[in-house]
Amino acid sequence: MYYILLSTGIVLLNEYVDTIEFNIPSYTIAALGTALAIFLGFKNNHAYDRWWEARKIWGLMVNYSRAWTRQVTTLITTLEGEDDHSVRELQKRMVYRHIAFVNALRVFLREKLSYNKLPVNELVEEENTYRDARPFLGPEEYRQFVSKDNPPNFLLQLQGEDLAEAFRRGWLSDYRLIKLEETLVDFNDIQGMSERIKNTPLPRQYTFFSRVFVAIHCTLLPMVFVADLGWMAIPISVVVSFVFLALDMIGERTEDPFENKLEDTPLTALSLTIETNLREQLKESKDNFPKKYSPERGVVL
Amino acid sequence: MYYILLSTGIVLLNEYVDTIEFNIPSYTIAALGTALAIFLGFKNNHAYDRWWEARKIWGLMVNYSRAWTRQVTTLITTLEGEDDHSVRELQKRMVYRHIAFVNALRVFLREKLSYNKLPVNELVEEENTYRDARPFLGPEEYRQFVSKDNPPNFLLQLQGEDLAEAFRRGWLSDYRLIKLEETLVDFNDIQGMSERIKNTPLPRQYTFFSRVFVAIHCTLLPMVFVADLGWMAIPISVVVSFVFLALDMIGERTEDPFENKLEDTPLTALSLTIETNLREQLKESKDNFPKKYSPERGVVL
Amino acid sequence: MYYILLSTGIVLLNEYVDTIEFNIPSYTIAALGTALAIFLGFKNNHAYDRWWEARKIWGLMVNYSRAWTRQVTTLITTLEGEDDHSVRELQKRMVYRHIAFVNALRVFLREKLSYNKLPVNELVEEENTYRDARPFLGPEEYRQFVSKDNPPNFLLQLQGEDLAEAFRRGWLSDYRLIKLEETLVDFNDIQGMSERIKNTPLPRQYTFFSRVFVAIHCTLLPMVFVADLGWMAIPISVVVSFVFLALDMIGERTEDPFENKLEDTPLTALSLTIETNLREQLKESKDNFPKKYSPERGVVL
Amino acid sequence: MYYILLSTGIVLLNEYVDTIEFNIPSYTIAALGTALAIFLGFKNNHAYDRWWEARKIWGLMVNYSRAWTRQVTTLITTLEGEDDHSVRELQKRMVYRHIAFVNALRVFLREKLSYNKLPVNELVEEENTYRDARPFLGPEEYRQFVSKDNPPNFLLQLQGEDLAEAFRRGWLSDYRLIKLEETLVDFNDIQGMSERIKNTPLPRQYTFFSRVFVAIHCTLLPMVFVADLGWMAIPISVVVSFVFLALDMIGERTEDPFENKLEDTPLTALSLTIETNLREQLKESKDNFPKKYSPERGVVL
Amino acid sequence: MYYILLSTGIVLLNEYVDTIEFNIPSYTIAALGTALAIFLGFKNNHAYDRWWEARKIWGLMVNYSRAWTRQVTTLITTLEGEDDHSVRELQKRMVYRHIAFVNALRVFLREKLSYNKLPVNELVEEENTYRDARPFLGPEEYRQFVSKDNPPNFLLQLQGEDLAEAFRRGWLSDYRLIKLEETLVDFNDIQGMSERIKNTPLPRQYTFFSRVFVAIHCTLLPMVFVADLGWMAIPISVVVSFVFLALDMIGERTEDPFENKLEDTPLTALSLTIETNLREQLKESKDNFPKKYSPERGVVL
Repeated sequence: MYYILLSTGIVLLNEYVDTIEFNIPSYTIAALGTALAIFLGFKNNHAYDRWWEARKIWGLMVNYSRAWTRQVTTLITTLEGEDDHSVRELQKRMVYRHIAFVNALRVFLREKLSYNKLPVNELVEEENTYRDARPFLGPEEYRQFVSKDNPPNFLLQLQGEDLAEAFRRGWLSDYRLIKLEETLVDFNDIQGMSERIKNTPLPRQYTFFSRVFVAIHCTLLPMVFVADLGWMAIPISVVVSFVFLALDMIGERTEDPFENKLEDTPLTALSLTIETNLREQLKESKDNFPKKYSPERGVVL
Repeated sequence: MYYILLSTGIVLLNEYVDTIEFNIPSYTIAALGTALAIFLGFKNNHAYDRWWEARKIWGLMVNYSRAWTRQVTTLITTLEGEDDHSVRELQKRMVYRHIAFVNALRVFLREKLSYNKLPVNELVEEENTYRDARPFLGPEEYRQFVSKDNPPNFLLQLQGEDLAEAFRRGWLSDYRLIKLEETLVDFNDIQGMSERIKNTPLPRQYTFFSRVFVAIHCTLLPMVFVADLGWMAIPISVVVSFVFLALDMIGERTEDPFENKLEDTPLTALSLTIETNLREQLKESKDNFPKKYSPERGVVL
Repeated sequence: MYYILLSTGIVLLNEYVDTIEFNIPSYTIAALGTALAIFLGFKNNHAYDRWWEARKIWGLMVNYSRAWTRQVTTLITTLEGEDDHSVRELQKRMVYRHIAFVNALRVFLREKLSYNKLPVNELVEEENTYRDARPFLGPEEYRQFVSKDNPPNFLLQLQGEDLAEAFRRGWLSDYRLIKLEETLVDFNDIQGMSERIKNTPLPRQYTFFSRVFVAIHCTLLPMVFVADLGWMAIPISVVVSFVFLALDMIGERTEDPFENKLEDTPLTALSLTIETNLREQLKESKDNFPKKYSPERGVVL
Repeated sequence: MYYILLSTGIVLLNEYVDTIEFNIPSYTIAALGTALAIFLGFKNNHAYDRWWEARKIWGLMVNYSRAWTRQVTTLITTLEGEDDHSVRELQKRMVYRHIAFVNALRVFLREKLSYNKLPVNELVEEENTYRDARPFLGPEEYRQFVSKDNPPNFLLQLQGEDLAEAFRRGWLSDYRLIKLEETLVDFNDIQGMSERIKNTPLPRQYTFFSRVFVAIHCTLLPMVFVADLGWMAIPISVVVSFVFLALDMIGERTEDPFENKLEDTPLTALSLTIETNLREQLKESKDNFPKKYSPERGVVL
Repeated sequence: MYYILLSTGIVLLNEYVDTIEFNIPSYTIAALGTALAIFLGFKNNHAYDRWWEARKIWGLMVNYSRAWTRQVTTLITTLEGEDDHSVRELQKRMVYRHIAFVNALRVFLREKLSYNKLPVNELVEEENTYRDARPFLGPEEYRQFVSKDNPPNFLLQLQGEDLAEAFRRGWLSDYRLIKLEETLVDFNDIQGMSERIKNTPLPRQYTFFSRVFVAIHCTLLPMVFVADLGWMAIPISVVVSFVFLALDMIGERTEDPFENKLEDTPLTALSLTIETNLREQLKESKDNFPKKYSPERGVVL
């Protein structure tokens, strides 16, 4: 990357400087050390927290998706003497629509925001479009779905309306209606929490200054080392700089977990797991299941 | 800022001092370093936690606002054979009043408290008045609303009374009434948690002393550096001081997330998102939606 | 305080010592630094956590008090054709008794425990007695209330009994009874959590040793500085000692948030806010509201 | 303790060594410092978290015990026209059995586990046997209770069966039955969380190595100090070692909060508070209350 | 291990180097120290958090398993005048199936994932196969169970279907059905949270770099020490390296708590505890209980 050039630039500079008699005492870097430790520790801890929270949220998605399917299939029941065909259809529609919701939310979250566009291309990338949700929605529903400002929220509204319909027909009691509505609220929460992480990057003041101060620190390093070490200062300051730059870079990469990067929360793999689990719960034949996710070049997206 | 003057002041002082033979050993700053690290780490971590908690609370506002709208539109139902016009009206009134609640809470939180008034003007500022809530309330309701000690709480009380009314008319069962009431409690929580962050600044002892100790540290810095470095002490101690002052300043700016500053939780943008989402759920025509929020000079308020 | 005497004592001692040839190398303090950082960081972080948790708990008190009032006024309803006078009275009694509960808990928490008595007097103090709860309780109820081992818990028991009475009269359905009971459990939680913080100080081993080690450290400081700095050691070691003593003191003061100190959680101000909000919800005339809390000498208790 | 001997051993060794010309540079300890800070910070923070979590869990026990008593006395009601004697008896039996549960759990948690037996005797000890639960259980129930593998869980099962019985008799509606069952689940949680802390000590790798590395560090200390300080190295390295050993010891003592040690969570005091509160709620006469807990030699168990 | 060879390699290298005049100043390691502290602190804290979270999740499993058994045995009741034989059978089947679920989840979690296979063999290992669940399931059920993609989830779906069946027969009211369904959702959560920890290792960037940087640091150590210490550098740099390598290794071992390692969450012991407790609640005779778990060589798996 660009930083290796920088480091070698510093080292070359350092050689010339060698003639200009440079002796900055070591405690200058020590004094900076404290501030750097706070900045880098802060950045890495909070970046990891965001990444882990994103993973937790999608873990909840897995749990509640399974629960939703169980609830839809066991709590919505026919009335005495009624044919259960239409109930079955409703159940299947609601589970399928939920699979569509999962895919829609994934696509919604992986949209590129302007301030997150990275100039570099990722090793492995994936296309995410709302077309993934098409097999799970009726054609008219799909048409409306893609035209909405917030497509996943639209699907939750539809689920709520289907529940109200089932209640009107007598397939749900008051109380079972509410239980299913509560599970929908959990999906509201999952969507909202994901959007929060997506739309609220770490405060720019922290990420910007941490990069600046690492640069300052790494610029001072060879100036300090050259006095005692001469030519040996080159490899050692490169190594030490590398450690700090790595710390800064790692935080940067982990920070935004919904940007289609290698380090992303594996939304695609999780979506497939959910789809497989739910169809197993619907007692569909195994042959129609999507293929297992096979990581490409060791990367799980 | 004022701190650059201070630093140059120190440097100038340092030059004069140069003649008075100054050699304070470096371990004096090292000894202070530990204490400073604790103070600054503390301040920055807790300031960030406050900022992030504020963002989380308003994320909940987004989630529950969507859930509230779904619940109001699907759980309040007409009795057999009754005209559903008046139910529709009630549903719309309750959703609109909720939009008013969101705006009212935003204004309530951004009121300037005396001990938070900053002497400097922000780059971008926004007016926040209760007038933003007017289009969503009836005229009589609005009149009462502005005269209250705690306007957002007044709106929640009204919502509760409307629910009781719907229950009396038979549009809500006992159980669905309680579910909607529980969502109102969630809004109580959101309001209360926001007020807590607004009204309880970080303990003054921490913010005050952290500023004092950074000042002490930065005053000692050039005194130490001058012995070994001579004139070179000027740029280096400015750079090092800058790092510490920046750490202190960043904490200060992030600390209070409801003060109409650039680093604020983006209440205005979130209010608009909520308004758009809710009206989409009410199936209103897209033409009446508020305009998308366009960040001014890269700032989202 | 007493610590300034100590510091000057050390400095005076240091002068005499000056003649006895003192040269302890600086790494002795550096070696202690690690341990001190752990101790002081630990003490300050956990003291702050306690203070902030106390504030959170009383934030919940605000939220649930508002919710309780809304629930009492909207969920307890008359039967068809019944006069609503007695229901109104019950509602008012239950809300007033809640205000009494808030005041009682405040007084209960601010009682001085023997092991927390400080020898120094606070700048601003406030009397806290159960008399503050008198206007909100009937005379017989008040008499019993003050004789109890745990007065706030007694009030919650009374609320529960009033709910059972309302249920017996048919003003509450089974389900609405439980919802109100659940809100009472929230108040049980708030009381219990406050008592936990009140009755469980930070483990003595941490607070005691942190003070001892700061003392050791500050005693060693001038001994180290005197070798290189001579007379200059006096101001510098006073300054450095001051920073560490301040860190220790701040933790000490923040640690116990229910002791009627300046840094306390502002229970009095919060009680007044709750009283005003609840009476506004009861639609009482503004003239009877308690006066706004006016901070005395910038202190909010 | 044994560590003072060790320190003096090191010091004595140091004297002999004095003749063998020892000069290890100070940065060797500085290099170890980082690792030690991580270990000791880790140990102390997590030990404290365990201790505080244990206190929180038993705080919940206090809250829910009060709520349980209120619920048992207000939610279990007689049918129209029925004598309320047998209901009263059931209520009293269930509250008493709960007091037995609290005592049983305390005893269950304070059983000595083989890997926690300490060779030293505590200053103040207390006997904990299931006999404390006898006055609150019927004789037959008590006999079965002591023979069980998990006595507290047995009591919760009995409570559940009594609730089912009350439901069968019509004293509880479906809905109130469930509310009481939910409170029992809270007690399941409290028991399970306490058992988790009891049965899962901090990973041995952390506690063992932290002790080893403190020993290594303290062994190196006098070797480093002796070069510059001569005989003066003895007191100073003793003091510094003491600080580190204290840090390690404190963590060790706080770590397991259910072992009948001085630093334990005060289960006995809390059990007495619960007993007093519940009997007050049952309106028993004050004369039968257990005596207030009087701390012995300043220790609350 | 391999690291001891490395260290001695470094030391041997060091001896040769001794002739090549090596004097790297000590502040090079100090500069690296900050970065290392962040990396190692990060790794160890988060590894421990994962381990402790896993333990917490399985603690919940214990709590809810007990609650599930109580609920199944007390909330599913016969209708007036009906024989309770078939209800008893259903209750027993549902509790046994739950034991099967616990065992199935344990086996599911301990499957070896390709990227977690360690080359070394553990001291004590245990076979985990689905056969452990056989005694608790009917033969046909067992056959289907092993053929599923996600066997534990299949069992939860069956539990849900049995509940719906009991509801249809009138053994459960609407409301009690939902309470039991809610407990099933808790098991969904437990399974999903365990899978999250199993399938999401710490980000590779952190674990990989922390190992690399420890290696760099330990390589520099003897180079620095040799200048001042000569031959004495060998033992001292081995000791210091050992401390850092140990810190790194401990994090590595604690990180993945479901891999059949010695440091694992003790799933086997917990499964046995659950089995014993549940059968005690079913009032089975003690003779059929599984044998108490006896730790092998001090290891609890």
